[in-house]
Amino acid sequence: MRAVIRRNKQLVCDEVPDLTPGPGQILVRTLACGICGSDLHALHHMEHMMETATRASGGFASGFDPTADTVFGHEFCAEVLDHGPGSQKTIRAGSRVVSVPVTLTETGMESLGYSNRLPGGFAERMLLTEAMVLEVPNGLPTDQAALTEPFAVGEHAVAMARLDPNSVCMVVGCGPVGLAVIAALKARGHGPVVATDYSPRRRAAAEKLGADLVIDPSKESPHARWDSYGVPVQRAAQSMARMMGKSFGRAVVFECVGAPGILQTLIEASPAGAQIVVAGVCMETDKIEPAIAITKEMELTFVFGYTPDEFAHTLRQISEGIIDVSSVVTGKVGLAGVAEAFVTLGDPESHVKILVEPTR
Amino acid sequence: MRAVIRRNKQLVCDEVPDLTPGPGQILVRTLACGICGSDLHALHHMEHMMETATRASGGFASGFDPTADTVFGHEFCAEVLDHGPGSQKTIRAGSRVVSVPVTLTETGMESLGYSNRLPGGFAERMLLTEAMVLEVPNGLPTDQAALTEPFAVGEHAVAMARLDPNSVCMVVGCGPVGLAVIAALKARGHGPVVATDYSPRRRAAAEKLGADLVIDPSKESPHARWDSYGVPVQRAAQSMARMMGKSFGRAVVFECVGAPGILQTLIEASPAGAQIVVAGVCMETDKIEPAIAITKEMELTFVFGYTPDEFAHTLRQISEGIIDVSSVVTGKVGLAGVAEAFVTLGDPESHVKILVEPTR
Repeated sequence: MRAVIRRNKQLVCDEVPDLTPGPGQILVRTLACGICGSDLHALHHMEHMMETATRASGGFASGFDPTADTVFGHEFCAEVLDHGPGSQKTIRAGSRVVSVPVTLTETGMESLGYSNRLPGGFAERMLLTEAMVLEVPNGLPTDQAALTEPFAVGEHAVAMARLDPNSVCMVVGCGPVGLAVIAALKARGHGPVVATDYSPRRRAAAEKLGADLVIDPSKESPHARWDSYGVPVQRAAQSMARMMGKSFGRAVVFECVGAPGILQTLIEASPAGAQIVVAGVCMETDKIEPAIAITKEMELTFVFGYTPDEFAHTLRQISEGIIDVSSVVTGKVGLAGVAEAFVTLGDPESHVKILVEPTR
Repeated sequence: MRAVIRRNKQLVCDEVPDLTPGPGQILVRTLACGICGSDLHALHHMEHMMETATRASGGFASGFDPTADTVFGHEFCAEVLDHGPGSQKTIRAGSRVVSVPVTLTETGMESLGYSNRLPGGFAERMLLTEAMVLEVPNGLPTDQAALTEPFAVGEHAVAMARLDPNSVCMVVGCGPVGLAVIAALKARGHGPVVATDYSPRRRAAAEKLGADLVIDPSKESPHARWDSYGVPVQRAAQSMARMMGKSFGRAVVFECVGAPGILQTLIEASPAGAQIVVAGVCMETDKIEPAIAITKEMELTFVFGYTPDEFAHTLRQISEGIIDVSSVVTGKVGLAGVAEAFVTLGDPESHVKILVEPTR
């Protein structure tokens, strides 16, 4: 079958071996698969990503070889073609499904999109784990179902935040992660949600996903207005308000950029007592000034991925229209267009999300 | 009256103006006042500390001039001498008191020990706020009462940690802050509490304050044993345990050193999902690798100071013997000995806590 393969840090269209579902697996036809920011990064820096992942796991090596062929793609919607031996067949052939991008095999767990053994969604077909797939509710367009995975990332980031009805949320960076955070916050009824991004296109997307106030940081600092949202910036002012029995909001800032320097900027600019939920993946060494974070008693919560429950919850919310993702997909390509799409996505003005349709 | 004054980055004994209590104030005689690590730092770096504090407060300047004369000392026990006009006189002259080191004046709030207007505890007398002082319970020695302030710092750090009965706590650095954290953890019945410090003297102090396991990091990594405490280091192992319905502990690591590099060491060495409570005050720019913290979903909670309630709670716990601080004071000096004590305290082997007795 055809696939887009990462080979020698290039994306090439080539044949990969056909797949046969093993016990507990199902064979699916990939209908649509989003291109993720981590794919863009991995194209050139997979070796560094894997080295980081190995260090983060206490030296545990996953057996994944970043120099060998890899088929990316972990944000997919697919159609069931066949079931492996001993299957329950609770989801019939022809049904559309989504899944957390993990497949159990006889030799262990494969992360689809970051595996040498199994292809991800930039291939015509995939092997999924039957017990993990979720049927796409009738009527939900394939394009929207394929957004379950990136929006689950936002659901998880919000679940990890310590929010209460007085929280004032700011989302810094309105790429796919930031948009997913905005959507999850608004789905829970939180507000005000302030969103900020240098890109007009991303700011427009943030507004469509429900951000209450969208700020262009080249025009004004998004941090200049905390007082007007009811969050005193200084610890002394917060203590004073508390002593006077006044209620005030706590700032929860979602860092969804993932570039060096942002963290320190947020430590410096956010109100005292703020929680910074770090969802943007900064792969470089970064500098912070702990004394500022200490004096302001800040909390840095680093988040990653999602749980299967959060994934399922996100699918439900999208299918019920609680999260309206209809504006998110801004382009589609076949396998032949993937390499160019990776280049195009380097410009935040060009697209919000591009889907790959391998059998287009 | 006599005081030790910080003047031109030196400590000198000199006369300072006598004090008259204003409305709401009481005049006290300083009985004992601890030398704090922040005093050691401030002797040479007060300008930088104030610049940091100003930035941390969003540019709010406290009116404190770090180049002018300052009398340090914010960990004190004192004897009531006189009351200001309109006093309730609920605490009689001759009573011993402790207080959060803040005095309300007609021109605002003064932080005792970091004020140009009012002296801290390295002076023979001080002005305190009547509404804030707490009477020392009968029978509690003055030396121990003077430790209320530094031990309140530990109480606060522990209060800010997200602890449950399964938590496994590690205290990195057993100077006064680390010891106070150990004491507060044990006072709440938490365990195991693992403590680590390069200094034999500090390790011995940690043991006296109730640490369950004390590790010399020059002999073995304190992080090598997490598995044996019931905390799987890898996220994958944690997920596996969760799926199999096994309960496991969550690591809560208290950073009580405050030097560059420690934070990244802890991010790298602590188990996935760990909370790092940052109580050590690193005044320099520090480097971290966010990608490791993200992959491991860590939480960095920066803490500072304590609330008046935590201060009062700490006094009660010391006076009731729940926290046994009898081993903490290892030296006493008069005003003439303060400058030398500052030098001596640079060596962790020399002392745990030195008290200044201004009228000795």
